[in-house]
Amino acid sequence: MTENCVPNPDSNHLGTLAIIWHGDHLALLDQRQLPDQEIWLTYKDASAVADAIRDMVVRGAPAIGISAAYGVVLAAHQAGDTKDWRADIEVAIEVLAKSRPTAVNLFWALERMKTRLQACQSAAEAIAKLTGEAESIHAEDVAANRLMGRHALSVMGDEPMAVLTHCNTGALATGGYGTALGVVRSLWHANRLKRVYADETRPWLQGSRLTAWELQQEGIPVTLNADSAAAQILRQGDVRWVIVGADRITANGDVANKIGTYNLAILARHHGVRFMVVAPSSTVDMALASGEDIPIEERDGTEVRAVRGVSIAPDGVDVFNPVFDVTPAELVDAIVTEKGVIERPDRDAMQAMFATRD
Amino acid sequence: MTENCVPNPDSNHLGTLAIIWHGDHLALLDQRQLPDQEIWLTYKDASAVADAIRDMVVRGAPAIGISAAYGVVLAAHQAGDTKDWRADIEVAIEVLAKSRPTAVNLFWALERMKTRLQACQSAAEAIAKLTGEAESIHAEDVAANRLMGRHALSVMGDEPMAVLTHCNTGALATGGYGTALGVVRSLWHANRLKRVYADETRPWLQGSRLTAWELQQEGIPVTLNADSAAAQILRQGDVRWVIVGADRITANGDVANKIGTYNLAILARHHGVRFMVVAPSSTVDMALASGEDIPIEERDGTEVRAVRGVSIAPDGVDVFNPVFDVTPAELVDAIVTEKGVIERPDRDAMQAMFATRD
Repeated sequence: MTENCVPNPDSNHLGTLAIIWHGDHLALLDQRQLPDQEIWLTYKDASAVADAIRDMVVRGAPAIGISAAYGVVLAAHQAGDTKDWRADIEVAIEVLAKSRPTAVNLFWALERMKTRLQACQSAAEAIAKLTGEAESIHAEDVAANRLMGRHALSVMGDEPMAVLTHCNTGALATGGYGTALGVVRSLWHANRLKRVYADETRPWLQGSRLTAWELQQEGIPVTLNADSAAAQILRQGDVRWVIVGADRITANGDVANKIGTYNLAILARHHGVRFMVVAPSSTVDMALASGEDIPIEERDGTEVRAVRGVSIAPDGVDVFNPVFDVTPAELVDAIVTEKGVIERPDRDAMQAMFATRD
Repeated sequence: MTENCVPNPDSNHLGTLAIIWHGDHLALLDQRQLPDQEIWLTYKDASAVADAIRDMVVRGAPAIGISAAYGVVLAAHQAGDTKDWRADIEVAIEVLAKSRPTAVNLFWALERMKTRLQACQSAAEAIAKLTGEAESIHAEDVAANRLMGRHALSVMGDEPMAVLTHCNTGALATGGYGTALGVVRSLWHANRLKRVYADETRPWLQGSRLTAWELQQEGIPVTLNADSAAAQILRQGDVRWVIVGADRITANGDVANKIGTYNLAILARHHGVRFMVVAPSSTVDMALASGEDIPIEERDGTEVRAVRGVSIAPDGVDVFNPVFDVTPAELVDAIVTEKGVIERPDRDAMQAMFATRD
């Protein structure tokens, strides 16, 4: 299953990959089943990829974007050399765009695919060019992650430290290596990491199911905690940075990310712990003035009323289940992308770094 | 099963009782099984009551104290009229005192029982007097809860409001009615409650399993949320007060309570939402200068690695599982006991209200 993979899963320190492209089909590691079972699902159909994104077979803003890009390639294969090939691919792009609302990387990746599609003169050319574009999106993501790790380390101080993270932002959430968890990998390989505290990240438990698993597999010291133990951990003084990913960053530096991120930003500020957001520049949406403009997905209450199919609450109880929250820029000490680090982000600094983005 | 009950489970608006004394045995509603099953366990043995406290068949600081008091009565029955009756009861008190370390009501209740025991001249007298004392502790708890509800309402403002609570502090956690959830009941019956947001309260899920169930049974509008959604809820502006219980309050007004309480206190302050602690005066420990002196129980990592027996994390992953945290007095807007309300608690105000406590 390793031929034609971008990136090569055997490559150095990338972590466990969750997206593998096989030339004519896409394989996704079913993240709903981790850590108990490693089940790979195979996709040859763009709308099935949209379902996989909606149902969280694959999750994590960068991984969603990459999967959607490969979904467009599958649409090109499906369309074949019919007279409607272009329209069919465009419809598939629309379907993929509707899979989840908050992460902007999804729309960014689909926009790249659409632009590339527009320049194609034939169905055969579309298959070739779209494949190249999706593979580029994937490879660029991994390269960006490695670069973010290096950028982040330049502002973190040289003393070995503990860090705290939320959700999963590792190899499983990206094309490989990870964003916030990529920084953790970089710290570890630089001998500057004492320990990672991983919020379990209710309701979907990305921390306990995915982050703890990823780190444990590589021997990186991880301690799992209930989300609500974070303040107690920050108070103990070992943690120097809280490091999280992002699903969308607006023109003023506000950050939409997994529910609980905003909590952590407040707690970090209260304890004098620094707060870092790590994401590829494709996460930055300069078209939105502030976090108030970000559509926040709410998912079904079942995710809170049950854990892995086991009921933990009375039937039918009302649930508030927002998937993301918005952290205002003033609580963020550093935004790290592959383009560099913005400390104390604001509109001007964001403008200076991202306004000229394609 | 209702004869000899203190209090009468049919009495007005007390909520679902979890502790029923039957004259010669104790019945506890097994809170580990809620809300799926309502299973009552019967106790005739003091050390079995200690196990029930340790294993969390019964939980909640006031409920632990009451159960332990009845445990001493069971010890008196077990000791019978032998020559060692007094020593046997004293040993049982020691065993009960070691069941859990953080809630001071446990030690307070056992101290009352010990004092009463010391004045007894015979085994028969001990049975009678200890029974009376345990029933008093139980009945006083319910009366205190009702009084706390009235005191709290006097400082909360007249506008209907939403509140947010953590853990379970209702009938199930007390002798009946509840502390923080008693205040919620009082608000509801005064037509001043719009909605209760209930933190699910990982890892033990007291919020989703117990609080949501208690409130749903009485038709009090409750919305369940993941603990990490609290900041987002507080930001929305509906919530006027965060209301929690306490396991121990020290002489300066610091509060030990369920892990996540300290989080909420920081979040409430950040959003200008007021933060109220509601607990009987038996929770106040004037012998401890500050929260730094409170022993904080850590429980096994299994509680975080699994939910209701279903694994949610990789085997053997390291876990930090403190059961309580300490909220410094400066983050508390009001401490409510049956003796009244202390706003902006500090050492002087605490001294003035609690120094003369027996």
